Amino acid sequence: VERKNLQNLFENFKKHDLRALSRLLTLVENEDEIAPDVLKEIYKNSGRAYRIGITGPPGAGKSTLVNALALELKERKISIGIIAVDPTSPFTGGALLGDRIRMTKALSGTNIFMRSMASRGGGGGLARTTPQAADVMDAFGFDVVIIETVGVGQLELDVANSVDSTVVVLVPETGGSVQAMKAGLIEIADVFVINKADRDGAETLKQELLDAMSLRSATSENSWTPPVIKTIAPAAKGISELAAKLEMHLNFLKANKLLARARLGRLRKRIIELTKLTLERMLWENTDHAAFLDHLCGLCMEGKMDPYSAVELFLKRIKIIKTKDPEV
Amino acid sequence: VERKNLQNLFENFKKHDLRALSRLLTLVENEDEIAPDVLKEIYKNSGRAYRIGITGPPGAGKSTLVNALALELKERKISIGIIAVDPTSPFTGGALLGDRIRMTKALSGTNIFMRSMASRGGGGGLARTTPQAADVMDAFGFDVVIIETVGVGQLELDVANSVDSTVVVLVPETGGSVQAMKAGLIEIADVFVINKADRDGAETLKQELLDAMSLRSATSENSWTPPVIKTIAPAAKGISELAAKLEMHLNFLKANKLLARARLGRLRKRIIELTKLTLERMLWENTDHAAFLDHLCGLCMEGKMDPYSAVELFLKRIKIIKTKDPEV
Repeated sequence: VERKNLQNLFENFKKHDLRALSRLLTLVENEDEIAPDVLKEIYKNSGRAYRIGITGPPGAGKSTLVNALALELKERKISIGIIAVDPTSPFTGGALLGDRIRMTKALSGTNIFMRSMASRGGGGGLARTTPQAADVMDAFGFDVVIIETVGVGQLELDVANSVDSTVVVLVPETGGSVQAMKAGLIEIADVFVINKADRDGAETLKQELLDAMSLRSATSENSWTPPVIKTIAPAAKGISELAAKLEMHLNFLKANKLLARARLGRLRKRIIELTKLTLERMLWENTDHAAFLDHLCGLCMEGKMDPYSAVELFLKRIKIIKTKDPEV
Repeated sequence: VERKNLQNLFENFKKHDLRALSRLLTLVENEDEIAPDVLKEIYKNSGRAYRIGITGPPGAGKSTLVNALALELKERKISIGIIAVDPTSPFTGGALLGDRIRMTKALSGTNIFMRSMASRGGGGGLARTTPQAADVMDAFGFDVVIIETVGVGQLELDVANSVDSTVVVLVPETGGSVQAMKAGLIEIADVFVINKADRDGAETLKQELLDAMSLRSATSENSWTPPVIKTIAPAAKGISELAAKLEMHLNFLKANKLLARARLGRLRKRIIELTKLTLERMLWENTDHAAFLDHLCGLCMEGKMDPYSAVELFLKRIKIIKTKDPEV
């Protein structure tokens, strides 16, 4: 996509053309040169959707749960955009991708749009581009944007910080509450789901989670106690309760002015992250700066300078910001 | 330690006072305010020690191996500084620390100095301070500095990038070569050690590693093929062979001018990292900048601005570097 075609894409996007949505998502996901133009344009129309993160350990049945939840919301005339985040791994990438393709098929013809995002070499890219993709879906007009993450790593915690409500999905056999605590899931959950709840141990896990919650409530100022819901996703059991609890959480956030406060906090963080990224590109992708850095390295190697003085000199000499004509 | 006492510490450090070494290491490890002064001072005397990284999965017997290697080098009249890096974990921290204490005792009275470094809250601190601690030991005059890391995460890969030679320690029962490949250990190893080699599977593992090496050699320009050595650390079996292979690797690096080239590369990386860190502190710990950032966030929340334009404005308005009087 070239810059001159962008205006055309924006027009189609406003007419709710799914192909235009898809192409804008690709530009954002690839961190294309013109991605900032896309994000600037769509920003003014975003900020309306309710964003739900769904996370939990592999094998908890998250995809099926997301599927069931989306169909439930559709019944309620709520339109849904889904982002499924797959950090590509040589061991799991293929199988998961297969699931996605099947799932997209099951949802076709409904008021539901699904997008898979895959890591291209890591380095925090997905943590950065996932909320941006959610902005695009938000601006497109979906009432709800669901972000589904696989696993329990740093990415999942980052994504949890970018949504309004976080659903943590566990299953009886995963070792339950101890594993969840270890992975930091107790801290981020607004709603707990025990999926595959017809299996042994579901009630025990529920009790453990409620116990862990009571500890959390005692030390936190937040008066929201995460409910624990049992579901059997393929049979859609417990799904309407999940939808109800999410609505309750959203109302709680609004009533306590927490929705706006959290969104302000996230906005601040994002501006900081973008500033860092821009600065890095300006600093290290400039050949003059690189040459000066090489010069300083040479002096250090000869023992004529130490790295700490080199840093001072580097910061002193280069003009990172041209005040009249910023290179942004 | 206050700045005025620093000169005194440096004098004692030059007289090979172990207490002075210990205190300077603490300043560096804690990233104390005066740590840059320490590093500037000692830098001119560092760059002489041969740095060896020893890594591998938990339970591979690395501590015992490091112990045995240190005693072997001592026999050869080589002085050794050891840094044992323990990323503190609520699950393993205590037990590992216990090992360290025992080990330090076993080495007391020899020409060997050991230091444990523990993570204080993560965030890349250990990856940054470990090479700095190695600089201090290097400047103190140790011929060899050994950095031992526990586990196979990002920290270990970072440490491997900061040493001259990396020893990867495996044991027959750890699942062997597949696990090592998965964790990226095959890429970083200069020497492989199969410890506890009297157990079943040692020869199979050796063969698997040699096969994996032959693949690596075929695609790499580097003509060094990592040898695979079997050891039984508590009985000091294979340890003199390990010492010999390390000496061979050091000579290989010198003969091919790789030692200086690698050190230059690391120096460059370090200057870049320090510059980033300094910039971050300048940007985000300044109250005026924070107030301006808040103002921009407010505009975005009101829909009067988007975050991408906010970044541009932020970079334009703030003067990160005062060219006459840098705040470094």
